Amino acid sequence: MQDIGSYLDHMRSASPLVHNITNFVAMNSMANVLLSAGASPAMVHSLEEVEDFAAISNALTVNIGTLEPAWVDAMTKAIARFNADGKPWVFDPVGVGATPYRKEVSARILELKPTVIRANASEILSLAGLSNAGKGVDSGDDVTSAVDAAKVLALQTGGIVAVTGSIDVVTDGTTQISIPHGSVMMSKITTMGCALNGVIGAFCVGQTPLESTAAALTYYGIAGELAKQNSHGPGSFWVAFLDALASLSGDEVSQRSKAILNGN
Amino acid sequence: MQDIGSYLDHMRSASPLVHNITNFVAMNSMANVLLSAGASPAMVHSLEEVEDFAAISNALTVNIGTLEPAWVDAMTKAIARFNADGKPWVFDPVGVGATPYRKEVSARILELKPTVIRANASEILSLAGLSNAGKGVDSGDDVTSAVDAAKVLALQTGGIVAVTGSIDVVTDGTTQISIPHGSVMMSKITTMGCALNGVIGAFCVGQTPLESTAAALTYYGIAGELAKQNSHGPGSFWVAFLDALASLSGDEVSQRSKAILNGN
Amino acid sequence: MQDIGSYLDHMRSASPLVHNITNFVAMNSMANVLLSAGASPAMVHSLEEVEDFAAISNALTVNIGTLEPAWVDAMTKAIARFNADGKPWVFDPVGVGATPYRKEVSARILELKPTVIRANASEILSLAGLSNAGKGVDSGDDVTSAVDAAKVLALQTGGIVAVTGSIDVVTDGTTQISIPHGSVMMSKITTMGCALNGVIGAFCVGQTPLESTAAALTYYGIAGELAKQNSHGPGSFWVAFLDALASLSGDEVSQRSKAILNGN
Repeated sequence: MQDIGSYLDHMRSASPLVHNITNFVAMNSMANVLLSAGASPAMVHSLEEVEDFAAISNALTVNIGTLEPAWVDAMTKAIARFNADGKPWVFDPVGVGATPYRKEVSARILELKPTVIRANASEILSLAGLSNAGKGVDSGDDVTSAVDAAKVLALQTGGIVAVTGSIDVVTDGTTQISIPHGSVMMSKITTMGCALNGVIGAFCVGQTPLESTAAALTYYGIAGELAKQNSHGPGSFWVAFLDALASLSGDEVSQRSKAILNGN
Repeated sequence: MQDIGSYLDHMRSASPLVHNITNFVAMNSMANVLLSAGASPAMVHSLEEVEDFAAISNALTVNIGTLEPAWVDAMTKAIARFNADGKPWVFDPVGVGATPYRKEVSARILELKPTVIRANASEILSLAGLSNAGKGVDSGDDVTSAVDAAKVLALQTGGIVAVTGSIDVVTDGTTQISIPHGSVMMSKITTMGCALNGVIGAFCVGQTPLESTAAALTYYGIAGELAKQNSHGPGSFWVAFLDALASLSGDEVSQRSKAILNGN
Repeated sequence: MQDIGSYLDHMRSASPLVHNITNFVAMNSMANVLLSAGASPAMVHSLEEVEDFAAISNALTVNIGTLEPAWVDAMTKAIARFNADGKPWVFDPVGVGATPYRKEVSARILELKPTVIRANASEILSLAGLSNAGKGVDSGDDVTSAVDAAKVLALQTGGIVAVTGSIDVVTDGTTQISIPHGSVMMSKITTMGCALNGVIGAFCVGQTPLESTAAALTYYGIAGELAKQNSHGPGSFWVAFLDALASLSGDEVSQRSKAILNGN
């Protein structure tokens, strides 16, 4: 793996166009996160143009937070274009365990083989259940169970799975990288996870997805730590977080990184 | 009535899941307000899942700010589920007086008997006109007229009506509580009222709606006062407001509260 | 031309109702920009009410950022009402060059003769190509080419064209006003341009569009300069920008203005 901060430098020099089909809650904050990080965001969902836009974009994120049938059709069309072109895309199965409709849509998207799946532990466990990987997923230690489920999911889809939480774990099913960064404050701000998808997508452009996903999570988590130091509540945290995303250099990310690579 | 700050403590310990079918402008700020306060927000509107999600949520808010027919259908479905389960829901008739479509939709929603209606004086006066409560509602002292209209509306729907403005008033038609908190700056930030609906809904879970609505308004208004002291314009006000929502304790709310209960 | 700061004072005293049919990313930030500036924002798009709402609004903005057919129908209906009533409306052709669908929709909207078109240089060049104004628009100096294209576009539509960038230029095709204000930080915050449309619309109510557009851009750019001084990254910039929009007076805008009027 390259020096972890170099992935940030690479992303900024490329300034990739990230096409997002995401939920209504996340659109504004995600765009600001991507701009602060140094990427170029766009939100395009109309069936009349979603394939045309996918064709000129560098990375794609799909997120089922406020899904409805026409938006799922848009996701499917954009994903098909990305798969045909061999470009990276990130899937966020928001609240997949909450309703049968989310489960059904997520199962369909999983079949399209996301480059990266990013979700919290509960969502990973629900997803793994969908692909019949889950035995005992609802019991025991959540973190351990989720990492095991993530590995099975990665092997089944052939992609990368990132489980985010107090410690983030990224795996391709055989190798895993632990990223002990971030702040509990990040769970008190809406769409922090949704916005991260865009950053992961941007980092994956022209880079191997396991390492670039780990680098994106490291950068994001360190920005969260800096923001915690410079704030005194969720309102000022968000302000400081965007400032930190913009001010962090690749060198600083490398110096602060505590990411740990473990073979399986 | 219990100590007014205890309603905040109760809400935080329950951390209720608040299902919001709200307008596009409010979604992000409402989610951040609910997270800062200590509740768990979700925005779900698809007809394919709205009833399933309503079944697992603790409170519901419906808001016609950017209404369209499919969203109104989603509101109706979610409300039916909440009514069947005896769970609280809050209706915000944004701009009801502006167009015939808003009036027609609001009249339909009123028939479903909201647990709480929250609106500004003009909207309450328009609503009261819809339910034939209005004689002379367009003239005279706005605040006085709105409180009278709110009482009639509360008696007709069997719910609670909250009129928010420079002084907030909550009534069940016979009792009224006046809440002289807040800041004029709150009218310079978009969706402050929309986001409040979620807080009211969260406070109503497992509590009587008259008192918990008054407690929610008191908490929100005091947070606004603190934010005013810690800001110098609408941008910094919003930041300080989220920080205040998160930092205020139940005891502090009780100490600062000036809410006044009046029998009719 | 009147004193440039007087347009801000005029707008604030009128507090116009600005009807926006804009993209999902921009809605919240645009509402906050308009409230901070002193106008009254509304987002209304349903075909069931869009004409009724257009009838009671003072200015309209249409923005194709996250367009889809039903929203384009809403734009067309609202524009027809505004044109019939002789009220000002602003068109923002976001990303018009990106897809055939955007080009087709933009060409249709151009035929309705916007009061003001506001766009960046690339978008102006794409638009000019649509109206057959473009010879050589894709080559040469971007700024110079865009200004030439803007002039042709203004003459063809009979409206005002504002090209925003490091220097803003406003033209009616014969006269041009250069506005050397703003901050590069404004390109690191999402929907800064989208939100500006609302401010332009608000300034145009009851004023001549060339001068009032120039005054709106001057005010907005000076607010950006103040925000740059009071921030250290994109998060704190946005906060300081809203504070500056609210605190700037007409006199301060006049004193700081460097806008230059050139006959053709």
